[in-house]
Amino acid sequence: MAPIRGEATGPPVDARVARTRQDILRATLDVLTSQGLDGLTHPHLAEVAGYSRATLYNHWPNRTALLRDAYTYAGAGKHSTPTGDLRSDLIAELTMFRTEMERHGLDRALAVLAAVTAFTPELAEVRDQLVTDGEQVMRGLLAPVLDGPELDAAVLMLTGAVLNSALLHGQLPSDSVIAAAVDLVLCTLGGPAS
Amino acid sequence: MAPIRGEATGPPVDARVARTRQDILRATLDVLTSQGLDGLTHPHLAEVAGYSRATLYNHWPNRTALLRDAYTYAGAGKHSTPTGDLRSDLIAELTMFRTEMERHGLDRALAVLAAVTAFTPELAEVRDQLVTDGEQVMRGLLAPVLDGPELDAAVLMLTGAVLNSALLHGQLPSDSVIAAAVDLVLCTLGGPAS
Repeated sequence: MAPIRGEATGPPVDARVARTRQDILRATLDVLTSQGLDGLTHPHLAEVAGYSRATLYNHWPNRTALLRDAYTYAGAGKHSTPTGDLRSDLIAELTMFRTEMERHGLDRALAVLAAVTAFTPELAEVRDQLVTDGEQVMRGLLAPVLDGPELDAAVLMLTGAVLNSALLHGQLPSDSVIAAAVDLVLCTLGGPAS
Repeated sequence: MAPIRGEATGPPVDARVARTRQDILRATLDVLTSQGLDGLTHPHLAEVAGYSRATLYNHWPNRTALLRDAYTYAGAGKHSTPTGDLRSDLIAELTMFRTEMERHGLDRALAVLAAVTAFTPELAEVRDQLVTDGEQVMRGLLAPVLDGPELDAAVLMLTGAVLNSALLHGQLPSDSVIAAAVDLVLCTLGGPAS
């Protein structure tokens, strides 16, 4: 979850305020991926970020507002760059998804996001935007060769295999599981395409 | 998440105590699937279940202990009964998974479980048991026709497609997406097996 988008909402702000907001959003992401929801209180975040509680409440009156900006600031993580070899490109993109989980706590950030949005409909929009961005490369790779429910299923299955492994099996998928998942999906094209 | 296992831990208890524990675990699951982690405090649960806080603390000194017993009590939900037609059986099992999400809030329970176990290693064991039980029928259906990383990938992808849809796309997968997911996996067997 490397910052990729910067400030996404609100009016133009001067450099000092922008820096304050960035410091606090970074601290929010740190706490979110190291302690989860329990650490996400304004008093605790103020302490971690080194700002007053009043500053936090001033910018974000509640946790939902803070989470919305923190996830927008974080973005969906890095993507791979397609080379034109479909099988290698799918494997590279899933491997990048796994790397973002491993290095930047994307797995924990997504687990918290799922648990929060299930009960906070106001966050559905930021979740949907993150998921759209997160799936963009995968969907772009598969759209020329699959369509309709088959395309939707393939995207859900490939990213879902990595998610399922990380979120409910407590381990990231191995290289061989990622390759096997890609080959299962590519079978329908008459064998691995390259 | 219908209760399927009853009490799983602790010494034999008399009927009154067993009933108290059951009432409170049911209330815990209700709160967990309707309000999420924010509602999971001992005072709030005591109020909802109609018992004293002291009773709750007496049985479960902390939230982790309570969650462990609540998830064990809930179990992994109902399964379909295989008929021998692999394609229909896989579709039926994924459809049952979706139904358990729809009717009993299994999607929310799993979102909370993922978010909690990411930061509470003590709960990994109960999560692993639930996932093993939850995957059991699916794995049993696929084990005769796939093995190694291909079997692991297929199980992660099929259940992962439903999970991904529910937890990160905010909607349960349609019948046609479920059927397309099953057909993608069965392709490797030389077309839908029946």
